[in-house]
Amino acid sequence: MDMQKVNSMDFGEFVDVFGNVIERCPLIAAAVWSQRPFSDLEDLERHFFEFIDTLPRSGQEGILRCHPDLAGRDLQRGTLTAESQREQSGAGLTTLSGDERRRLSELNARYRARFGFSFVLAVRLSDRAAVPEELARRLHQQPEHELRTALGEVKKIGHLRLLDLLGSEPARL
Amino acid sequence: MDMQKVNSMDFGEFVDVFGNVIERCPLIAAAVWSQRPFSDLEDLERHFFEFIDTLPRSGQEGILRCHPDLAGRDLQRGTLTAESQREQSGAGLTTLSGDERRRLSELNARYRARFGFSFVLAVRLSDRAAVPEELARRLHQQPEHELRTALGEVKKIGHLRLLDLLGSEPARL
Repeated sequence: MDMQKVNSMDFGEFVDVFGNVIERCPLIAAAVWSQRPFSDLEDLERHFFEFIDTLPRSGQEGILRCHPDLAGRDLQRGTLTAESQREQSGAGLTTLSGDERRRLSELNARYRARFGFSFVLAVRLSDRAAVPEELARRLHQQPEHELRTALGEVKKIGHLRLLDLLGSEPARL
Repeated sequence: MDMQKVNSMDFGEFVDVFGNVIERCPLIAAAVWSQRPFSDLEDLERHFFEFIDTLPRSGQEGILRCHPDLAGRDLQRGTLTAESQREQSGAGLTTLSGDERRRLSELNARYRARFGFSFVLAVRLSDRAAVPEELARRLHQQPEHELRTALGEVKKIGHLRLLDLLGSEPARL
Protein backbone atom coordinates (compact mmCIF):
# COMPACT_ATOMS: atom_id res chain seq x y z
CA MET A 1 0.00 0.00 0.00
CA ASP A 2 1.47 3.40 -0.94
CA MET A 3 0.77 6.80 0.64
CA GLN A 4 -1.33 7.94 -2.29
CA LYS A 5 -3.73 5.10 -1.49
CA VAL A 6 -3.65 5.97 2.22
CA ASN A 7 -4.32 9.64 1.55
CA SER A 8 -7.32 8.79 -0.63
CA MET A 9 -9.08 6.79 2.11
CA ASP A 10 -12.26 8.08 3.71
CA PHE A 11 -12.24 7.84 7.51
CA GLY A 12 -14.17 4.57 7.54
CA GLU A 13 -11.56 2.81 5.40
CA PHE A 14 -8.72 4.46 7.32
CA VAL A 15 -10.02 3.23 10.68
CA ASP A 16 -10.67 -0.23 9.22
CA VAL A 17 -7.01 -0.42 8.16
CA PHE A 18 -5.17 1.52 10.89
CA GLY A 19 -7.60 1.19 13.83
CA ASN A 20 -5.42 -1.27 15.71
CA VAL A 21 -2.00 0.32 15.13
CA ILE A 22 -2.46 1.30 18.77
CA GLU A 23 -4.00 -1.77 20.40
CA ARG A 24 -7.79 -1.46 20.89
CA CYS A 25 -7.64 2.34 20.42
CA PRO A 26 -9.36 3.01 17.06
CA LEU A 27 -10.07 6.50 18.45
CA ILE A 28 -6.40 7.33 17.86
CA ALA A 29 -6.41 6.28 14.19
CA ALA A 30 -9.72 8.11 13.79
CA ALA A 31 -8.12 11.26 15.20
CA VAL A 32 -4.99 10.93 13.06
CA TRP A 33 -7.13 10.97 9.90
CA SER A 34 -7.67 14.70 10.60
CA GLN A 35 -3.96 15.27 9.82
CA ARG A 36 -3.95 13.86 6.26
CA PRO A 37 -2.36 14.05 3.73
CA PHE A 38 0.68 12.15 4.99
CA SER A 39 3.98 12.40 3.14
CA ASP A 40 5.34 8.97 4.14
CA LEU A 41 5.23 6.28 6.81
CA GLU A 42 7.35 8.36 9.15
CA ASP A 43 4.99 11.30 8.87
CA LEU A 44 1.91 9.10 9.46
CA GLU A 45 3.60 7.49 12.46
CA ARG A 46 4.60 10.85 13.88
CA HIS A 47 0.93 11.88 14.06
CA PHE A 48 0.04 8.68 15.96
CA PHE A 49 2.87 9.30 18.43
CA GLU A 50 2.11 13.01 18.84
CA PHE A 51 -1.49 12.19 19.68
CA ILE A 52 -0.31 9.80 22.40
CA ASP A 53 2.17 12.35 23.75
CA THR A 54 -0.40 15.11 24.07
CA LEU A 55 -2.97 13.01 25.97
CA PRO A 56 -3.36 13.72 29.66
CA ARG A 57 -1.67 11.17 31.90
CA SER A 58 -4.97 9.35 32.49
CA GLY A 59 -5.32 8.89 28.72
CA GLN A 60 -1.78 7.54 28.41
CA GLU A 61 -2.48 5.10 31.23
CA GLY A 62 -5.77 4.29 29.45
CA ILE A 63 -3.85 3.21 26.33
CA LEU A 64 -1.78 0.80 28.43
CA ARG A 65 -4.94 -0.55 30.11
CA CYS A 66 -6.38 -1.40 26.67
CA HIS A 67 -3.46 -3.80 26.07
CA PRO A 68 -3.96 -7.47 26.96
CA ASP A 69 -1.66 -9.21 29.42
CA LEU A 70 1.01 -11.28 27.69
CA ALA A 71 -0.03 -14.95 27.80
CA GLY A 72 -3.06 -13.79 29.82
CA ARG A 73 -6.83 -13.99 29.91
CA ASP A 74 -7.46 -12.87 26.31
CA LEU A 75 -5.03 -15.42 24.94
CA GLN A 76 -6.71 -18.22 26.97
CA ARG A 77 -10.18 -17.09 25.89
CA GLY A 78 -9.28 -16.52 22.25
CA THR A 79 -10.27 -12.85 22.45
CA LEU A 80 -6.94 -11.31 21.44
CA THR A 81 -6.92 -8.96 18.44
CA ALA A 82 -5.46 -10.56 15.30
CA GLU A 83 -2.31 -8.45 15.66
CA SER A 84 -1.73 -9.41 19.31
CA GLN A 85 -2.39 -13.05 18.54
CA ARG A 86 0.29 -13.02 15.83
CA GLU A 87 2.78 -11.16 17.98
CA GLN A 88 2.33 -13.30 21.10
CA SER A 89 2.36 -16.46 19.01
CA GLY A 90 5.54 -15.40 17.18
CA ALA A 91 7.28 -14.87 20.53
CA GLY A 92 6.30 -18.37 21.64
CA LEU A 93 3.86 -17.15 24.32
CA THR A 94 1.03 -19.37 23.07
CA THR A 95 2.94 -22.57 23.88
CA LEU A 96 4.20 -21.90 27.42
CA SER A 97 4.27 -24.71 29.95
CA GLY A 98 1.86 -24.51 32.89
CA ASP A 99 4.70 -23.35 35.14
CA GLU A 100 5.83 -20.64 32.73
CA ARG A 101 2.27 -19.38 32.35
CA ARG A 102 1.70 -19.28 36.11
CA ARG A 103 4.99 -17.41 36.64
CA LEU A 104 4.03 -14.82 34.00
CA SER A 105 0.50 -14.52 35.37
CA GLU A 106 1.85 -13.85 38.86
CA LEU A 107 4.31 -11.23 37.58
CA ASN A 108 1.57 -9.57 35.48
CA ALA A 109 -0.68 -9.34 38.54
CA ARG A 110 2.08 -7.77 40.64
CA TYR A 111 2.83 -5.31 37.83
CA ARG A 112 -0.85 -4.31 37.48
CA ALA A 113 -1.17 -3.88 41.24
CA ARG A 114 1.95 -1.71 41.41
CA PHE A 115 1.40 0.55 38.37
CA GLY A 116 -2.35 0.43 37.63
CA PHE A 117 -1.88 -0.57 33.99
CA SER A 118 -0.86 -3.64 31.96
CA PHE A 119 2.73 -4.67 31.25
CA VAL A 120 3.35 -3.78 27.61
CA LEU A 121 6.32 -5.09 25.65
CA ALA A 122 6.99 -5.25 21.90
CA VAL A 123 7.36 -9.04 21.98
CA ARG A 124 8.36 -9.22 18.32
CA LEU A 125 11.67 -7.77 19.50
CA SER A 126 11.83 -10.26 22.39
CA ASP A 127 11.19 -13.96 23.10
CA ARG A 128 9.54 -16.24 25.66
CA ALA A 129 12.66 -16.47 27.82
CA ALA A 130 13.25 -12.70 27.91
CA VAL A 131 9.63 -11.69 28.66
CA PRO A 132 9.48 -12.73 32.36
CA GLU A 133 13.00 -11.35 32.95
CA GLU A 134 12.03 -7.99 31.48
CA LEU A 135 8.78 -7.97 33.45
CA ALA A 136 10.61 -8.73 36.71
CA ARG A 137 13.13 -5.97 35.95
CA ARG A 138 10.52 -3.33 35.12
CA LEU A 139 8.51 -4.19 38.24
CA HIS A 140 11.18 -2.32 40.21
CA GLN A 141 11.15 0.88 38.17
CA GLN A 142 9.67 4.10 39.51
CA PRO A 143 6.07 4.67 38.28
CA GLU A 144 6.86 7.82 36.29
CA HIS A 145 9.82 6.17 34.57
CA GLU A 146 7.83 2.99 33.92
CA LEU A 147 4.98 4.92 32.28
CA ARG A 148 7.50 6.37 29.81
CA THR A 149 9.06 2.95 29.19
CA ALA A 150 5.66 1.35 28.58
CA LEU A 151 4.55 4.10 26.15
CA GLY A 152 7.85 3.59 24.32
CA GLU A 153 6.87 -0.06 23.86
CA VAL A 154 3.42 0.99 22.58
CA LYS A 155 5.21 3.06 19.94
CA LYS A 156 7.53 0.21 18.96
CA ILE A 157 4.48 -2.05 18.52
CA GLY A 158 2.72 0.66 16.50
CA HIS A 159 5.79 1.17 14.31
CA LEU A 160 6.00 -2.54 13.49
CA ARG A 161 2.26 -2.72 12.76
CA LEU A 162 2.52 0.27 10.42
CA LEU A 163 5.44 -1.39 8.64
CA ASP A 164 3.31 -4.52 8.18
CA LEU A 165 0.48 -2.46 6.72
CA LEU A 166 2.58 -0.24 4.49
CA GLY A 167 5.03 -2.89 3.45
CA SER A 168 8.05 -1.71 1.57
CA GLU A 169 10.25 0.21 4.02
CA PRO A 170 12.88 -1.44 6.26
CA ALA A 171 12.35 -1.56 10.06
CA ARG A 172 14.26 1.15 11.93
CA LEU A 173 14.18 -0.57 15.31
CA MET B 1 -24.80 -2.11 40.50
CA ASP B 2 -23.89 0.41 43.22
CA MET B 3 -20.89 2.74 43.34
CA GLN B 4 -19.14 0.66 45.99
CA LYS B 5 -19.06 -2.18 43.51
CA VAL B 6 -17.84 0.16 40.75
CA ASN B 7 -15.10 1.59 42.95
CA SER B 8 -13.86 -1.89 43.82
CA MET B 9 -13.32 -2.90 40.17
CA ASP B 10 -9.83 -3.42 38.81
CA PHE B 11 -9.29 -1.73 35.45
CA GLY B 12 -9.95 -4.92 33.50
CA GLU B 13 -13.43 -5.30 34.99
CA PHE B 14 -14.08 -1.57 34.69
CA VAL B 15 -13.27 -1.54 30.96
CA ASP B 16 -15.33 -4.72 30.43
CA VAL B 17 -18.36 -2.97 31.97
CA PHE B 18 -17.93 0.68 30.90
CA GLY B 19 -15.77 0.31 27.76
CA ASN B 20 -18.61 1.16 25.39
CA VAL B 21 -20.22 4.04 27.31
CA ILE B 22 -18.54 6.07 24.58
CA GLU B 23 -19.08 4.02 21.42
CA ARG B 24 -15.98 2.00 20.42
CA CYS B 25 -13.75 4.12 22.66
CA PRO B 26 -12.68 1.81 25.52
CA LEU B 27 -9.65 4.10 25.86
CA ILE B 28 -11.92 6.67 27.48
CA ALA B 29 -13.31 4.29 30.11
CA ALA B 30 -9.76 3.04 30.69
CA ALA B 31 -8.63 6.63 31.29
CA VAL B 32 -11.57 7.44 33.57
CA TRP B 33 -10.58 4.56 35.89
CA SER B 34 -7.64 6.78 36.97
CA GLN B 35 -10.16 9.14 38.62
CA ARG B 36 -11.74 6.59 41.00
CA PRO B 37 -13.28 6.53 43.56
CA PHE B 38 -16.52 7.96 42.17
CA SER B 39 -19.15 9.37 44.52
CA ASP B 40 -22.17 8.68 42.29
CA LEU B 41 -23.32 8.28 38.69
CA GLU B 42 -23.08 12.00 38.09
CA ASP B 43 -19.49 12.09 39.28
CA LEU B 44 -18.54 9.08 37.12
CA GLU B 45 -20.25 10.64 34.12
CA ARG B 46 -18.53 13.98 34.70
CA HIS B 47 -15.14 12.30 34.30
CA PHE B 48 -16.18 10.73 30.99
CA PHE B 49 -17.38 14.11 29.72
CA GLU B 50 -14.34 16.02 30.98
CA PHE B 51 -12.06 13.60 29.18
CA ILE B 52 -13.96 14.26 25.95
CA ASP B 53 -13.89 18.02 26.49
CA THR B 54 -10.12 18.14 27.03
CA LEU B 55 -9.23 16.14 23.91
CA PRO B 56 -7.77 18.09 21.01
CA ARG B 57 -10.23 18.73 18.20
CA SER B 58 -8.85 15.79 16.19
CA GLY B 59 -9.62 13.50 19.14
CA GLN B 60 -13.16 14.82 19.44
CA GLU B 61 -13.67 14.26 15.71
CA GLY B 62 -12.11 10.81 16.23
CA ILE B 63 -14.83 9.91 18.74
CA LEU B 64 -17.49 10.81 16.19
CA ARG B 65 -15.71 8.78 13.49
CA CYS B 66 -15.87 5.71 15.76
CA HIS B 67 -19.68 5.86 15.69
CA PRO B 68 -21.51 3.78 13.08
CA ASP B 69 -23.85 5.41 10.58
CA LEU B 70 -27.51 5.07 11.59
CA ALA B 71 -29.08 2.26 9.52
CA GLY B 72 -25.71 1.96 7.77
CA ARG B 73 -23.01 -0.53 6.88
CA ASP B 74 -22.52 -2.01 10.36
CA LEU B 75 -26.22 -2.62 10.78
CA GLN B 76 -26.39 -4.39 7.39
CA ARG B 77 -23.30 -6.48 8.17
CA GLY B 78 -24.32 -7.32 11.73
CA THR B 79 -21.18 -5.66 13.13
CA LEU B 80 -22.84 -3.08 15.39
CA THR B 81 -21.92 -3.10 19.08
CA ALA B 82 -24.64 -4.62 21.29
CA GLU B 83 -25.55 -1.15 22.60
CA SER B 84 -25.89 0.40 19.14
CA GLN B 85 -27.90 -2.58 17.92
CA ARG B 86 -30.39 -2.12 20.77
CA GLU B 87 -30.60 1.63 20.30
CA GLN B 88 -31.05 1.55 16.52
CA SER B 89 -33.51 -1.32 16.81
CA GLY B 90 -35.53 0.49 19.50
CA ALA B 91 -35.83 3.53 17.23
CA GLY B 92 -37.15 1.35 14.38
CA LEU B 93 -34.04 1.79 12.23
CA THR B 94 -33.62 -1.96 11.67
CA THR B 95 -36.94 -2.24 9.83
CA LEU B 96 -36.75 0.65 7.36
CA SER B 97 -38.13 0.22 3.87
CA GLY B 98 -35.65 0.19 0.99
CA ASP B 99 -36.57 3.79 0.15
CA GLU B 100 -36.13 4.98 3.73
CA ARG B 101 -32.76 3.26 3.96
CA ARG B 102 -31.55 4.76 0.68
CA ARG B 103 -32.67 8.24 1.76
CA LEU B 104 -30.79 7.91 5.08
CA SER B 105 -27.73 6.46 3.36
CA GLU B 106 -27.61 9.39 0.95
CA LEU B 107 -27.99 11.93 3.78
CA ASN B 108 -25.32 10.16 5.84
CA ALA B 109 -22.91 10.29 2.89
CA ARG B 110 -23.53 14.03 2.38
CA TYR B 111 -23.02 14.64 6.10
CA ARG B 112 -19.74 12.70 6.18
CA ALA B 113 -18.49 14.54 3.10
CA ARG B 114 -19.36 17.92 4.59
CA PHE B 115 -18.09 17.47 8.16
CA GLY B 116 -15.55 14.63 8.01
CA PHE B 117 -17.23 12.59 10.74
CA SER B 118 -20.35 10.45 11.23
CA PHE B 119 -23.81 11.81 12.02
CA VAL B 120 -24.41 11.01 15.69
CA LEU B 121 -27.83 11.20 17.30
CA ALA B 122 -29.16 9.74 20.57
CA VAL B 123 -31.85 7.75 18.78
CA ARG B 124 -33.43 6.55 22.03
CA LEU B 125 -34.70 10.11 22.33
CA SER B 126 -35.85 10.11 18.69
CA ASP B 127 -37.64 7.83 16.20
CA ARG B 128 -37.40 6.62 12.61
CA ALA B 129 -39.43 9.54 11.24
CA ALA B 130 -37.42 12.20 13.08
CA VAL B 131 -33.95 10.84 12.22
CA PRO B 132 -33.79 11.89 8.53
CA GLU B 133 -35.40 15.25 9.36
CA GLU B 134 -32.80 15.93 12.03
CA LEU B 135 -30.00 14.80 9.72
CA ALA B 136 -31.21 17.08 6.92
CA ARG B 137 -31.43 19.99 9.37
CA ARG B 138 -27.96 19.47 10.85
CA LEU B 139 -26.42 19.17 7.38
CA HIS B 140 -26.81 22.93 7.10
CA GLN B 141 -25.11 23.86 10.36
CA GLN B 142 -21.69 25.46 10.47
CA PRO B 143 -18.90 22.89 11.11
CA GLU B 144 -17.84 24.33 14.47
CA HIS B 145 -21.42 24.43 15.73
CA GLU B 146 -22.12 20.93 14.38
CA LEU B 147 -19.08 19.47 16.16
CA ARG B 148 -20.50 20.78 19.45
CA THR B 149 -23.98 19.45 18.65
CA ALA B 150 -22.62 16.01 17.76
CA LEU B 151 -20.50 15.78 20.94
CA GLY B 152 -23.62 16.72 22.90
CA GLU B 153 -25.34 13.69 21.36
CA VAL B 154 -22.36 11.48 22.28
CA LYS B 155 -22.85 12.61 25.88
CA LYS B 156 -26.60 11.93 25.82
CA ILE B 157 -25.90 8.41 24.53
CA GLY B 158 -23.24 7.93 27.22
CA HIS B 159 -25.61 9.17 29.92
CA LEU B 160 -28.31 6.70 28.90
CA ARG B 161 -25.81 3.83 28.71
CA LEU B 162 -24.51 4.67 32.19
CA LEU B 163 -28.10 4.71 33.49
CA ASP B 164 -28.63 1.25 31.99
CA LEU B 165 -25.49 -0.04 33.67
CA LEU B 166 -26.04 1.57 37.05
CA GLY B 167 -29.76 1.12 37.14
CA SER B 168 -31.62 2.91 39.87
CA GLU B 169 -31.54 6.64 39.12
CA PRO B 170 -34.08 8.46 36.91
CA ALA B 171 -32.98 9.84 33.53
CA ARG B 172 -32.26 13.56 33.63
CA LEU B 173 -32.67 14.15 29.89
